[in-house]
Amino acid sequence: MVDAHNNNPLHQVVIVGGGFGGLYAAKALKKADVSVTLIDKRNFHLFQPLLYQVATGALSPADISSPLRSVLSKSKNTKVRLGEVNDIDPKGQKVMVGDEIIPYDTLIVATGAKHSYFGKDSWEASAPGLKTVEDAIEMRRRIFMAFEAAEKETDAEKRRAWLTFVIVGGGPTGVELAGAIAELANQTLKEDFRNIDTSEARILLLEGMDRILPPFAPELSQAAETSLMQLGVLVQTKTMVTNIENDTVTIKQGDSVRELASKTILWAAGVKANAMGKVLAERTGAECDRAGRVIVEPDLSIKGHSNIFVVGDLANFSHQNAKPLPGVAPVAKQEGEYVATLIQKQLKGETLPQFNYTDHGSLAIIGQNSAVVDLGFIKLQGFFAWLFWLIIHIYFLIEFDNKIVVMIQWAWNYFTRNRGARLITSQKPLIQVGIEDSNYYPSETAKQPLNV
Amino acid sequence: MVDAHNNNPLHQVVIVGGGFGGLYAAKALKKADVSVTLIDKRNFHLFQPLLYQVATGALSPADISSPLRSVLSKSKNTKVRLGEVNDIDPKGQKVMVGDEIIPYDTLIVATGAKHSYFGKDSWEASAPGLKTVEDAIEMRRRIFMAFEAAEKETDAEKRRAWLTFVIVGGGPTGVELAGAIAELANQTLKEDFRNIDTSEARILLLEGMDRILPPFAPELSQAAETSLMQLGVLVQTKTMVTNIENDTVTIKQGDSVRELASKTILWAAGVKANAMGKVLAERTGAECDRAGRVIVEPDLSIKGHSNIFVVGDLANFSHQNAKPLPGVAPVAKQEGEYVATLIQKQLKGETLPQFNYTDHGSLAIIGQNSAVVDLGFIKLQGFFAWLFWLIIHIYFLIEFDNKIVVMIQWAWNYFTRNRGARLITSQKPLIQVGIEDSNYYPSETAKQPLNV
Repeated sequence: MVDAHNNNPLHQVVIVGGGFGGLYAAKALKKADVSVTLIDKRNFHLFQPLLYQVATGALSPADISSPLRSVLSKSKNTKVRLGEVNDIDPKGQKVMVGDEIIPYDTLIVATGAKHSYFGKDSWEASAPGLKTVEDAIEMRRRIFMAFEAAEKETDAEKRRAWLTFVIVGGGPTGVELAGAIAELANQTLKEDFRNIDTSEARILLLEGMDRILPPFAPELSQAAETSLMQLGVLVQTKTMVTNIENDTVTIKQGDSVRELASKTILWAAGVKANAMGKVLAERTGAECDRAGRVIVEPDLSIKGHSNIFVVGDLANFSHQNAKPLPGVAPVAKQEGEYVATLIQKQLKGETLPQFNYTDHGSLAIIGQNSAVVDLGFIKLQGFFAWLFWLIIHIYFLIEFDNKIVVMIQWAWNYFTRNRGARLITSQKPLIQVGIEDSNYYPSETAKQPLNV
Repeated sequence: MVDAHNNNPLHQVVIVGGGFGGLYAAKALKKADVSVTLIDKRNFHLFQPLLYQVATGALSPADISSPLRSVLSKSKNTKVRLGEVNDIDPKGQKVMVGDEIIPYDTLIVATGAKHSYFGKDSWEASAPGLKTVEDAIEMRRRIFMAFEAAEKETDAEKRRAWLTFVIVGGGPTGVELAGAIAELANQTLKEDFRNIDTSEARILLLEGMDRILPPFAPELSQAAETSLMQLGVLVQTKTMVTNIENDTVTIKQGDSVRELASKTILWAAGVKANAMGKVLAERTGAECDRAGRVIVEPDLSIKGHSNIFVVGDLANFSHQNAKPLPGVAPVAKQEGEYVATLIQKQLKGETLPQFNYTDHGSLAIIGQNSAVVDLGFIKLQGFFAWLFWLIIHIYFLIEFDNKIVVMIQWAWNYFTRNRGARLITSQKPLIQVGIEDSNYYPSETAKQPLNV
């Protein structure tokens, strides 16, 4: 592709990752005199802030996903490539996708984060996290299966374990999950079972610090905790998880240690950088922090490589505050848009001041009717915070049909206290119905399906 | 549970299967003086007629599914049991679900059908069918992956194979799939790719008989074929498939045999009874037909077992017409409702005339704006048939929120020619991006994911 002016080949911008960082960078380059290639492992952009709603059966994956090709189809200078970047050659200025080589003049790496189990990777099988659509579908399956299992369980202790839900991590994700599961137990599913009373479910939210939602103002943390307690969630702060094994969570509060029997343990506690961080570090000599995030310059580039940028959860930007910017969607979005603007300025021989994140505030929802919103100068709680939360999330959904569908779904769920998307689906057939077996979840080693 | 009148234990009705037959039987028993247990492998009722829309990215699974507990939550005499029936004891009047025994006074078996490959079960891996949500998600994955693969394929012949879609079976499912894929190629995806022109895709619909939609009136079959050709589908009648192997379909037309290279082969050609048919036959001595369906009496019971009924796709009811009633949703629905009414009559010492199916007609849609509707005395085609098709399907969706969401989705898809639900999702991570490998689809034997 050549540019219109002088038949020189266009400046090639390659973007790795179609999340908030990469996709908004691509959108901001729509009219630029560059050629853009966006590479992602998936064919869609995922609105991660609402993933917990898929996990709790309120929304479908497609309601919060936008096909990348569709979002960028009008960007005639942009092509989308489905694939996984396995290596980078900074000297040769190219990335490797399988056997294919894709050259770049400017590279933007925005591959995001994945869950961290603080070194205890064995916990992952027992305590899944929530980063991808498949994570959400699996979490959904476990949550709804737990009620099904409790319904047919005759042993009281085992039934209690099925009706005990433990969420590890008191940040926005954990708070939102806990609130949603409490609503399921106390409202949505109340009339659906005959042998159990779903409102007897225990939902525990465990947080290591002294309050939930640590980044928020203290009075909002308090308001959130009160709302959660009213919904029926048992909030346990200053509580560390020391082991997860055999459907048991070992927790430590001060000096006391105890065990909780739970068949449904959900992880919302830690993230670390996607492994692309290591690849970049090896290939460019970039430094990474302890979570594997790449430390970037004030303009989001890598030291010594002014044409390689890192944005989003993979980047550690510490030039504005004492601590690095948090791994949240608005940060990734602004960083992506900044880099896109910078590229265009640089092509004209101009420059920009260093990146500066405009913090519009934080928000977290606690069930229906209640949320906390920290805008710095204004703090909202309760009903108006909740309305604000809804509006902001609708606003930031990319595709217009998603906005409409999500609004309709939310209105429906609100007025009927129902959740329409609570399917239990699986790639494998539901093979395990003898629930006494602790290998409840379908796996290669579980019983083979009866050919019925 | 005892009845209100005389403290005798209530008559226990056990229903196996929550599809059109089983679920409508359960709904019709809501006010009856019986205790109902509905057993299903899944926790939701699936509106199968719209499954092809999930497979082609127009709707999400939840849009056409209704959680069984939710649908039946107001039926206080009804409990739902998630599980798989593996055996029946007609003498002891009980069914076995794993280790659990569930006794019945009346049993209704409504477990449906699965795909038949006419003895060539090896074809199934290459040519998936469309019966479950997981089938639809897998089909969706293959369809959209084919375009992605073509986009990066440099070899012209391989690219052609990626852009060749073969649908086997010219009944309503095959016709609707073919029409939807043609729309994808010629409209929805037209602007989304840069290296390929998606409208160059070849979509072939293969039918063994001399016309597609054989159950419809001949002029409607002709109208459907014309509409499909206008959409860009190559309809091949009197065409038998003799082999499917290695991304190649071998077809026989008259005496000539030829091979088609296609990476996406979809099966809509044959069904046979679910294996519960065999179980019933062995345990009750019931006769089955060649497709494994259980031959039933005029009141839908099994010969010699007046308290065991079979309804839906599993039943062969031949007391009305020369041929057995077709395996379609309205038949299953009416059969289920009939049995429910009969049970209530019998409890009062009364009876009913034999089952009589009221055929309200058949319909099939061909892309947007066109359908064929055969109501016997009236035949519709084109735009008004299409409107009628939409209204009927909305009407028969069970849950009100599904009706609203599907209407919104359809309106959106119609006006934007877009499809919002075209995610490629998988239980396993997308591990295979070197598409030259014929083992394209993730499987245990394919390359392990790079930990990126």
